[in-house]
Amino acid sequence: MSWKTKALPALGAASLLAVASTAAVAGDGYHERYSNFFEPLPYFAPIPANNSLTPEKVELGTMLFFEPRISASGVISCATCHNPALGWSDRIPRATGHDGQVGDRNTPTVLNSGFFGAQFWDGREPDLEGQALGPIEADIEMNMPLDEAIARLEEFDEYKQAFARAYGTEAITPERVAHALASFQRTLNTPNSPLDRYLRGDLSAMTDQQKRGMAAFVDNGCTACHNGPALTDSLFHAIQVPGSSDLGRYLVTGDEADRYRFKTPTLRNVALTYPYFNNGGTETLTEAVQVMGREMLGREFDSRTNADIVAFLHALTGDQPNVAIPALP
Amino acid sequence: MSWKTKALPALGAASLLAVASTAAVAGDGYHERYSNFFEPLPYFAPIPANNSLTPEKVELGTMLFFEPRISASGVISCATCHNPALGWSDRIPRATGHDGQVGDRNTPTVLNSGFFGAQFWDGREPDLEGQALGPIEADIEMNMPLDEAIARLEEFDEYKQAFARAYGTEAITPERVAHALASFQRTLNTPNSPLDRYLRGDLSAMTDQQKRGMAAFVDNGCTACHNGPALTDSLFHAIQVPGSSDLGRYLVTGDEADRYRFKTPTLRNVALTYPYFNNGGTETLTEAVQVMGREMLGREFDSRTNADIVAFLHALTGDQPNVAIPALP
Repeated sequence: MSWKTKALPALGAASLLAVASTAAVAGDGYHERYSNFFEPLPYFAPIPANNSLTPEKVELGTMLFFEPRISASGVISCATCHNPALGWSDRIPRATGHDGQVGDRNTPTVLNSGFFGAQFWDGREPDLEGQALGPIEADIEMNMPLDEAIARLEEFDEYKQAFARAYGTEAITPERVAHALASFQRTLNTPNSPLDRYLRGDLSAMTDQQKRGMAAFVDNGCTACHNGPALTDSLFHAIQVPGSSDLGRYLVTGDEADRYRFKTPTLRNVALTYPYFNNGGTETLTEAVQVMGREMLGREFDSRTNADIVAFLHALTGDQPNVAIPALP
Repeated sequence: MSWKTKALPALGAASLLAVASTAAVAGDGYHERYSNFFEPLPYFAPIPANNSLTPEKVELGTMLFFEPRISASGVISCATCHNPALGWSDRIPRATGHDGQVGDRNTPTVLNSGFFGAQFWDGREPDLEGQALGPIEADIEMNMPLDEAIARLEEFDEYKQAFARAYGTEAITPERVAHALASFQRTLNTPNSPLDRYLRGDLSAMTDQQKRGMAAFVDNGCTACHNGPALTDSLFHAIQVPGSSDLGRYLVTGDEADRYRFKTPTLRNVALTYPYFNNGGTETLTEAVQVMGREMLGREFDSRTNADIVAFLHALTGDQPNVAIPALP
């Protein structure tokens, strides 16, 4: 697991010191003015007090994440749509699940999802623990009643032992399944993107074009919503992207003010997580930036500004988690 | 890739020497009599003269194996049914593919499939190159016409570059796809099982029960069909397992003599590749051994003999390939 072996050395005092001194040496005309609009991605997502992150829970959560037999068909796992080969998403417009049914929305990446203050496009769950069980039960996703999923896991001594290692006893409960999946997902973070290295003082980590894009991103107000370590405020904003009539958060709250509101999506690794928006109807970053200019800002970016912003968005791709496929019982 | 980094050291002269001297030291009452009925699994499967195995083809084949966008739904890859987490099979009775359609037969593991002299349960293809494209096109599997699959790959510069690295030019052809997939699969071998180590002279590599099982396996004639490095003769034998009315190879040849004939399945890693037989209708090795005794040998194994043979079958689980999930474009 990369989070066990790779994260800590890079946090050493020596490297932090080196970074600080680099930053002190030189300016590039951008760093001083724009870097305080952003935050480097921490190595770990916040860990809630009621679900301590342990290697045993992560190991179990990894197994569960790759386990297709907790779906009705026996072939769909979390990793089917949140595919590690595809930026932990699926690179198709809308999620395709049980019996080939196609959902209404694009599969969000699970990368850095532990940094989100709300889960799902409509924020209907507050955290990863709340999110984890939804797709197992959803009839267009894995379509598996939770008691049946648990009964299937109980058939395997190896799962009972893994739950015992994680929680002290063999009992397999929905809460324990959710906590293990959430723990695993909390390790799927992507630090050290060019932006992160730049923010820490390596002024050569981004190209000149990416720096111009960063400036345009800030100057046009994108950071009003895309802020914080995952470049999302985890709040809900009204938007109707091309081809979408989805009512968004209104479907959760029934509040008229929530019509067409969606959670601000993370921009971390956005170059890997095409196609874009709630309906996955926009194929390229160039189009996505154009749509955002028109819909959210009421302006038309010129082609150079658009290209600069796209270049900056490519600077948000970080180190990818290196997860070994688990051997399942 | 394990085949690049792990295979060669174990082939060093020193370890072969050590093995030879161990064998010379002591007998266990079984080795001398039974070991010549078996062959240790080589580290590499045979490589055909018209498809040299290169790292570039293996890299490309790995990408294609995990690529779901060469399926009509966009979510089914080779790795969906030949799941690395599940012994490179799926651990459900019969293959489930496009739109949740369920096929007639159990998914065979791809482990050691380069050692098979025929592919598919009915041997309708002679080799991995012939096998590779079938499941992409099959309407109940990935359901993707080959020209569409290739057109989808051609959308990505990264694939064009990978084909150029493997074959010298960017052209994406069915033959090149098949050759790359076959090359990747030829690396998925599982040497160093307890049986292999035992055959090479480590008399402690199998338990006493496994040795009794080996003897029962030979004495009851199982090696008549289950022989060679992958414990299959790659020939076709008539069998009707419980719940099956599948006509088997007859459906390929139309020859009356081929009714109910199926290719002898490999027994390598059989403990990982449940459920069993052409219809996947038999859940445990204990039942499978009982069925084989009745159907192929006309005898009823006593429970001790059955347990011994099952223990021996567990000695056929080798080192599993350690394949990293590729980052797809």
